[in-house]
Amino acid sequence: MNLVLSRDSQVKTMENTVANAEKYFGQFCALLAAYARKTAKLRDKSDLLVKQLFDYANTENPELQRTMKNFAEELAKVQDYRQAEVERLEMKVVEPLKRYGVQFKQMRAEMKRFNSVRNNEIKQLEKLERLRQKSPSDRHTISQAESNVHKASVDAARTTQLLEETIDEFQKQKLKDIQKIFLDFVTIEMAFHAKALEVYSSAFQNLDGYDLERDMEDFRAKLHGASGNQDARPASATNSSSTLPWSTSNQSIQSTLQRQEDSEDDSEENVLQDFSDSEYEPIRRQLNSGTNHPRS
Amino acid sequence: MNLVLSRDSQVKTMENTVANAEKYFGQFCALLAAYARKTAKLRDKSDLLVKQLFDYANTENPELQRTMKNFAEELAKVQDYRQAEVERLEMKVVEPLKRYGVQFKQMRAEMKRFNSVRNNEIKQLEKLERLRQKSPSDRHTISQAESNVHKASVDAARTTQLLEETIDEFQKQKLKDIQKIFLDFVTIEMAFHAKALEVYSSAFQNLDGYDLERDMEDFRAKLHGASGNQDARPASATNSSSTLPWSTSNQSIQSTLQRQEDSEDDSEENVLQDFSDSEYEPIRRQLNSGTNHPRS
Repeated sequence: MNLVLSRDSQVKTMENTVANAEKYFGQFCALLAAYARKTAKLRDKSDLLVKQLFDYANTENPELQRTMKNFAEELAKVQDYRQAEVERLEMKVVEPLKRYGVQFKQMRAEMKRFNSVRNNEIKQLEKLERLRQKSPSDRHTISQAESNVHKASVDAARTTQLLEETIDEFQKQKLKDIQKIFLDFVTIEMAFHAKALEVYSSAFQNLDGYDLERDMEDFRAKLHGASGNQDARPASATNSSSTLPWSTSNQSIQSTLQRQEDSEDDSEENVLQDFSDSEYEPIRRQLNSGTNHPRS
Repeated sequence: MNLVLSRDSQVKTMENTVANAEKYFGQFCALLAAYARKTAKLRDKSDLLVKQLFDYANTENPELQRTMKNFAEELAKVQDYRQAEVERLEMKVVEPLKRYGVQFKQMRAEMKRFNSVRNNEIKQLEKLERLRQKSPSDRHTISQAESNVHKASVDAARTTQLLEETIDEFQKQKLKDIQKIFLDFVTIEMAFHAKALEVYSSAFQNLDGYDLERDMEDFRAKLHGASGNQDARPASATNSSSTLPWSTSNQSIQSTLQRQEDSEDDSEENVLQDFSDSEYEPIRRQLNSGTNHPRS
């Protein structure tokens, strides 16, 4: 009976190993999926910012326009890398953890099978015990029961051996996978941060090189030009660039404002709250559809 | 009357400049506040992951335990940098944009004041025109009206001059600020990405150095040790470390599982959805309260 008890404790250890892994892998899967989802939401907000920066750039004088458009492009690049980050997290981190669900199911089936074999061994042992007490002289039946116990024990031992091998393989694979999954997580994050750093360095150079005085000259020329003629921009010694006349810019502002007022609430407080439920679909990723992170 | 019309178009240009800035600064403020908020949510998810990694580490054998705890610590460090990022974004990007609200209000008041002065000029001109048509011979009254027109024109010219100076100063400050705000944004992001890259590099080294075989030896010893005695871990030639006995670990798992089952739904699907509304407050930032990003 001692061997049965020891097997009992061994199978408990195995069950705990599997249950524990199942519990935590499930948690990791849920949390890393949420992490990817939150990253996708950060990307969406940034995409909105990119769009607004482009809209704003179109309303400004050439120098700021150039600077803002350049900045918006760099910011959009970071979002492309963030998009790649989200996709890779899902493929190399969330999916492998999800697949573990199947493996846990198989392990539970294995252990159930072992339990039924083990229960049979106990049943045969109890039967033999009862026979020995009730009819100790019935040598034939006792011998038969002894043979059944032996068979059941051999079965149980073989199943235990198999289960031990299975759990050994499972544990090895689990340790290997947990290392790989988190190494992949770290690698994906590193790649994103390195790319973001690179793009922002270039964005910094661009913003830093902005020539405010040039824009002020344009602005002053416009303001005084507007006194003379509303619909045409005066030729100016300080401005030989191909900027649109101010009145045209105004029309562009008006239509931009109109578009925004059509699509979203104007008040800042409402914008702050409404944006979180925004159904905005970034144009850039609408083009290469299928790569966009599904909204939860 | 021509001067009045030209002033009219000039003030329209000024009004458009202010209205346009107000519109976009409001949008930038809302979007960058949302960006900071989404970043804070990403930090919260990561904090949850850190917590689960620590919990999981406590249920594993010494080698994986050490590796996972080290990884959790590195991941927590990244979140500390993310927290700094959120705080700096709010202080150096969102707040300055918010403060512009006051400035826009002042500018609108200035322009309103100009409009009333300008309207007075028009009123006086119209009065003079009427007088000239109704009683062209009433030299005294006409002379009085002409004097009023002159005064109103001087007033309007002075106010226009003042407004022009104010709008010039406003535009200059606006251009300077937009450059500074986005430069600060880029600097804050760069600092975060650089730090994250550094910490993840160290996390990679740690994870990469994980010795799976050592843990497998421990696991096999435990599994066979469990056959002999459920409550004590057998001495093992391959394991001289200070790990807790497996049975104690089991209790720890059980209580951890219990805690988790008390506080949240167990099913993965529900976890995935419920986590987004989670009220989890990271312990680390509970300590230095006040620095935590307020939840929306």
